[in-house]
Amino acid sequence: MKTYTNPPLSEWASISQRPIMASENLEEQVRKIINDVKLNGDKALKEFALQFDRVEIEDLKVSISEIELAATQVPTELKEAISVAAKNIRTFHLSQQSAEVPVETMPGVSCWRKNVAIENVGLYIPGGTAPLFSTILMLAVPAQIAGCKHIALCTPTDKNGDINPAILYTASFLGITEMYKVGGAQAIAALAYGTESIAKVDKIYGPGNQYVTKSKELVQQSGVAIDLPAGPSEVLVIADASADADFVASDLLSQAEHGADSQVVLVTTDSSLIAKVTDALKSQIGVLPRAEMAKKALDNSFSILFNFIEQCIDFSNVYAPEHLILAIEDAEGYADKIQNAGSVFLGNYSCESAGDYASGTNHTLPTNGYARSYSGVSLDSFLKKITFQKITAKGLQNIGKTVEIMAEAEQLFGHKNAVSIRLKKIEDEK
Amino acid sequence: MKTYTNPPLSEWASISQRPIMASENLEEQVRKIINDVKLNGDKALKEFALQFDRVEIEDLKVSISEIELAATQVPTELKEAISVAAKNIRTFHLSQQSAEVPVETMPGVSCWRKNVAIENVGLYIPGGTAPLFSTILMLAVPAQIAGCKHIALCTPTDKNGDINPAILYTASFLGITEMYKVGGAQAIAALAYGTESIAKVDKIYGPGNQYVTKSKELVQQSGVAIDLPAGPSEVLVIADASADADFVASDLLSQAEHGADSQVVLVTTDSSLIAKVTDALKSQIGVLPRAEMAKKALDNSFSILFNFIEQCIDFSNVYAPEHLILAIEDAEGYADKIQNAGSVFLGNYSCESAGDYASGTNHTLPTNGYARSYSGVSLDSFLKKITFQKITAKGLQNIGKTVEIMAEAEQLFGHKNAVSIRLKKIEDEK
Repeated sequence: MKTYTNPPLSEWASISQRPIMASENLEEQVRKIINDVKLNGDKALKEFALQFDRVEIEDLKVSISEIELAATQVPTELKEAISVAAKNIRTFHLSQQSAEVPVETMPGVSCWRKNVAIENVGLYIPGGTAPLFSTILMLAVPAQIAGCKHIALCTPTDKNGDINPAILYTASFLGITEMYKVGGAQAIAALAYGTESIAKVDKIYGPGNQYVTKSKELVQQSGVAIDLPAGPSEVLVIADASADADFVASDLLSQAEHGADSQVVLVTTDSSLIAKVTDALKSQIGVLPRAEMAKKALDNSFSILFNFIEQCIDFSNVYAPEHLILAIEDAEGYADKIQNAGSVFLGNYSCESAGDYASGTNHTLPTNGYARSYSGVSLDSFLKKITFQKITAKGLQNIGKTVEIMAEAEQLFGHKNAVSIRLKKIEDEK
Repeated sequence: MKTYTNPPLSEWASISQRPIMASENLEEQVRKIINDVKLNGDKALKEFALQFDRVEIEDLKVSISEIELAATQVPTELKEAISVAAKNIRTFHLSQQSAEVPVETMPGVSCWRKNVAIENVGLYIPGGTAPLFSTILMLAVPAQIAGCKHIALCTPTDKNGDINPAILYTASFLGITEMYKVGGAQAIAALAYGTESIAKVDKIYGPGNQYVTKSKELVQQSGVAIDLPAGPSEVLVIADASADADFVASDLLSQAEHGADSQVVLVTTDSSLIAKVTDALKSQIGVLPRAEMAKKALDNSFSILFNFIEQCIDFSNVYAPEHLILAIEDAEGYADKIQNAGSVFLGNYSCESAGDYASGTNHTLPTNGYARSYSGVSLDSFLKKITFQKITAKGLQNIGKTVEIMAEAEQLFGHKNAVSIRLKKIEDEK
């Protein structure tokens, strides 16, 4: 990890640049995959499974017997943990419900919004290097609270054509049984355009590698919404002398192990902490099965020493981290200064992995500086807010003149006439 | 307008297809413009103004004296109308504020969300065929309620290098004085990447022609958020025998006059209404200055006769209109059946143009079927919802085991260790 000491403000933006790992021709490759799926449907999906994963898939849809088998393969203590996590996630996302009451902006002019579920949603759960069944909880629980009618899940198989039992169990535990054995850019294309087996959805959610991300980006251009542009995971820890170097190192490593392209950042006011954390990283990394990946991620990572906590916060707001840990005294007091972050963890015991799995907050969060303008996934991500208005004859008399004058000034006389013709009839009927 | 009678469900999706008006090489043209702005900044903006609009722009930034002059050119009654509209829009968007309270998902585990304004926002106001100053109200009022620190506005000039006074006045009436004389795809590029004169923003809002829309779509791929993908405007009117044919025709025309690529749809249970509305369209269209555009839009439009209101609603949910007018008895009773729409107008006096200008609802809405998954612009569009969590030592003891088990099952031992190392220290300190 590179160390900066009091870097000037002018360098903060360049320090905040994330490592770029674009493969050559990524967009072109993904476009080809998408077009093939649009053209050939299920046949293309099966051919890609064979080509990329060397797996022959007979039936894309997961069968009831596969789901039942998976339930017997998941240990009881994991089932209990999933149940606890689901309960906490449900509690927090239920608290995000809102009902808005009509507002009378003028006598006879009432306006309100109504939350309506997005009907058809597609969840993408990566297989890859770790079976991320926790992401099912993060996406399916709010989708169910929102009331989405049709929830479809796509996930790749392993080399034997099987899906990890924890993934099948978690979905079926929540009552989701529409699951398809398809991964990568082609899964996104299938959800976006539909195939013989997989119905087209209105919005696609979930993390993935750069092929998946690019595919989401491209299908978004033809009418399908996506949750948010996802990139490699990242954490920024702000720590002062009250922080515990072992805890900080463990948090940095829990991000670093996600992948070689992850980035972890330590920003501190305590000059001795950087050395202590570096030592702790060395002693902790050895026991991790994913140490190789974590090491590569640490090579992309850095620490910064500032004089004051305020500078640490300011830098963090420029960096806009996906995860932000405030391992400082009076963490709650500084919470109000956070402008740009996906999810914030306050104090020494609020470790990021608690939020990744079970505290209740969502772990699908904006990366790569997107926290400046995007929120993480929440109940809102599965809803549309439709506006309604009801204007009475009296209301139109109150507001009509204003509309007529503005429409005329915009040279939209049809807009004006829609009011005038009504006002005239109201007068005539008097 | 083409007429369908009881079309079978299987045809609804194809009937709902919007007219496509893509110019050749649109994406390529826009990419070139974006790259030129990235490379040459202000110089490129000025060259495009010369090339596309035949205008020589000396200073991109609107001067105080231009703003002051505009204020003298706007008639008092228009100023008053703008003030009334701003007040109603502010009232409705203020009602969208929310404060969420912490939720204890488990003893010692507290989670909450906080609304934080997006700091830097860019508003695009089209010049084009109509000076859409009303869009400034729709974008700037919620931006100000949200607390966005930096609001920049781009709008093209006319052939003399001037901006319509109503646009300058409306912005300065709201206290927005950072305005730039730049339009089209190049304005979006300037807001996305920054130039010498124009600072980079975090999110770009506002309607525009297909060049502007394509530019928003492309810059979105490199870290700038956009409000929503905008397309040609559209309205669907559901009417029964209680509807007034003159009112319905006036509503259809007020959308049709937006542009040749707009679409208007009448869905009714009353077989005589279609003929009556067709007659009313003929008599009303003659007096419109934009009759030519409206006629072309009507050529892209259609009406449908169904037997029951429920079928009309079902069709509308498939079509997912930007604007939906329920000109039927018990409009409010049917409001709950609306699944997909941008903004809904209930009853004979709730004309769409009231919502376009002054009732308080936002007129920046999802078109082209995007209402299936997108909401219109609201206060939320200018906020991020950042999640926070505070876990105490006791809380971590409650939730720790769950996290450890799940992390291990996902083979993420670094995640597990971040909990274990803390639980051990809590035990050791006992």
